[in-house]
Amino acid sequence: MAGKLPVSPLAPKGGFPDLPVIEGVRFASGAAGVKYADRADVMLAELAPGTVITGTFTRSKTRAAPVLDCETKLGGASEAGAAILVNAGNANAFTGTAGVTAVRAITGAVADLLDLPETRVFTASTGVIGEPLPHDRVTAALSDLKASLDPGGIEGAAQAIMTTDTFPKGATRQVEIDGKTVSISGFAKGSGMIAPDMATMLVYIFTDAKAGFEGLQATLSALTDRTFNRITVDSDTSTSDTLLLAATGASGVDVTGSDTFAGALEEVMLDLAHQVVRDGEGASKFVTINVTAAASEEDAERVARAIADSPLVKTAVAGEDPNWGRVVMAVGKSGAEADRDRLAIRFGEVLVAENGQVHDGYEEADAAAHMKGDEITISVDLGLGTAEATIWTCDLTAQYIAINADYRS
Amino acid sequence: MAGKLPVSPLAPKGGFPDLPVIEGVRFASGAAGVKYADRADVMLAELAPGTVITGTFTRSKTRAAPVLDCETKLGGASEAGAAILVNAGNANAFTGTAGVTAVRAITGAVADLLDLPETRVFTASTGVIGEPLPHDRVTAALSDLKASLDPGGIEGAAQAIMTTDTFPKGATRQVEIDGKTVSISGFAKGSGMIAPDMATMLVYIFTDAKAGFEGLQATLSALTDRTFNRITVDSDTSTSDTLLLAATGASGVDVTGSDTFAGALEEVMLDLAHQVVRDGEGASKFVTINVTAAASEEDAERVARAIADSPLVKTAVAGEDPNWGRVVMAVGKSGAEADRDRLAIRFGEVLVAENGQVHDGYEEADAAAHMKGDEITISVDLGLGTAEATIWTCDLTAQYIAINADYRS
Repeated sequence: MAGKLPVSPLAPKGGFPDLPVIEGVRFASGAAGVKYADRADVMLAELAPGTVITGTFTRSKTRAAPVLDCETKLGGASEAGAAILVNAGNANAFTGTAGVTAVRAITGAVADLLDLPETRVFTASTGVIGEPLPHDRVTAALSDLKASLDPGGIEGAAQAIMTTDTFPKGATRQVEIDGKTVSISGFAKGSGMIAPDMATMLVYIFTDAKAGFEGLQATLSALTDRTFNRITVDSDTSTSDTLLLAATGASGVDVTGSDTFAGALEEVMLDLAHQVVRDGEGASKFVTINVTAAASEEDAERVARAIADSPLVKTAVAGEDPNWGRVVMAVGKSGAEADRDRLAIRFGEVLVAENGQVHDGYEEADAAAHMKGDEITISVDLGLGTAEATIWTCDLTAQYIAINADYRS
Repeated sequence: MAGKLPVSPLAPKGGFPDLPVIEGVRFASGAAGVKYADRADVMLAELAPGTVITGTFTRSKTRAAPVLDCETKLGGASEAGAAILVNAGNANAFTGTAGVTAVRAITGAVADLLDLPETRVFTASTGVIGEPLPHDRVTAALSDLKASLDPGGIEGAAQAIMTTDTFPKGATRQVEIDGKTVSISGFAKGSGMIAPDMATMLVYIFTDAKAGFEGLQATLSALTDRTFNRITVDSDTSTSDTLLLAATGASGVDVTGSDTFAGALEEVMLDLAHQVVRDGEGASKFVTINVTAAASEEDAERVARAIADSPLVKTAVAGEDPNWGRVVMAVGKSGAEADRDRLAIRFGEVLVAENGQVHDGYEEADAAAHMKGDEITISVDLGLGTAEATIWTCDLTAQYIAINADYRS
């Protein structure tokens, strides 16, 4: 169904951002015909020698073959450079030994093409689960891809990996460190933790910063927990979620221990994570869930996630209903420490309930006005401790059902 | 919205069953006008001296006032008899100290009415959260209720506690023990773990068996885990779920340690639990999820629940799509021990996938034919151990969204 859906009403108004060139990276995209006709469905990123590659992946126990392959290959700077090859249209997931064969065929062909060791070739596949990936179509497209490698090709790459996405997702930040500019640019696809038959969130971020593998991997893992692991569309988890961060080092600026760099990287990651939510299937509202005064950070996240994943809360948001009773319900079911009589709940800035009952001056019209916007904030103060957490999600609409209940055709 | 919805297509074809009189119990129902006009909204059950009352309750951390009150009152045979009073239309949940006052006003009035100690009066409330319960309307109806107490009044009682239910739910079993007949009859309400603004699953079961409190409570708790705790409509948990089992002892048959009695009780509980799913909001399919060959029972339940609660699986069922890729996804996200390459998946009797890939002889038309029925079975063999679990649920349809996204009016 790619391309048939209207662009999400929550898409960034300015369209795809201008992304600065990251020295040491070239992109190409093309049409391999894996499944879709008349569109690019494969992208290649070539990375200069010296590039460090870090990553985070789905925690699913049924991870797809490309994920299992990538996990073993993360690592530090190599004289050999590196490459990333991604196809859309087929996830190469739950394909048994044929899946492993397909990964090897593609990584081997890319290694030959760019004169790299196979251990430096990363792949990902997104699309239908359970059908063998026609890897010969992908490898047949490689020489054209090599010929069109271009430092400015990042938007085309972002478009080539879309499946049910309704818009390509890009983000960038530039920061000054030691008097020099360091750039970070990335793109993502995903419109649901898992899209209809076209699973997966994929994220690729590139920077010209210089960094050691272990420090950069630790930073990336910590930031993933605060960004991509804090969004949810439908609580479902893909078999293939992949985030790779490639640092070419071309700026010469060592960012080891740099809070400035980590801050900029977090902004890029959060920007892309929010765009994934904004393209959530059927989404009409972008929802921020803030939980404060929890007994522990784990409890804060658990409560925020219970609210964000509650079908009853999500449908109430879709209906523009400030239904705080459902928020109380979600707090109660989360399993986190909670005292009914200490809860305070706000929709936007409107205090709805406190001390276990409706706030004295509460007028439903005030909260209802906030719910009519397309940026909704629900805040819960547990009144117990000092820990807090934020989760971002979208509403649950009839369009989500329509997209996902359609018989595959 | 009570009464405005068409009867669920999954409702039992025979209508409300004929329930035998349970000696020692009389029922009354009437219209207190708590919220609804023109319908009964309150029911009273009077229990003879000697009745043992056991119960299980929601695990929510934001339990409503009547639940907190009931929990303290469970207990063994008393010379004083007992009573249960339930109102529909207002849940008396998240009502602060006013909620406690309302419970005391009602239990006190019922105690006076029937000459019982207050510690033997059990109440429940179901309906809107967060609005003070107009308890004076309930107590004003009590003398009429007392005047109409009738051993045959159980169907009226079942109807009086409905909120968004589309049909009243009753079940019964009779068994021979020691040459005598023991009867068990019960009724339930609930159409969703929590209904729109009208939270709560309530279940009341009555038997003329004779039993000690501790043994009967242990049996009830164990059976609850295998019946009501194995159903899910939308994964949301009410603040007020209440199940009471009252054993009058009138048959004179001591059922302590009787597998025959426990088996019959489990059948009544499962029957009522299934009827709650069959009245799930917007449900068009009744879905049984069987998980076998898990490493532990906890894992089996976790996998079954992940499948049953997955919006993507539930929408696929609504769309009659044998989308086994989503089942693989749900197995992977459950967190249970799983080996992708040992999974086998069946829709009905049709083997879809095994050993980590599509089954050789699989024809999608076969599985699609099963999905067109209104009783769907999804079976997952994890290929690891011997533990198993079953969860019952329904599909997720546009009607669920329509019911739950409607602005409260």
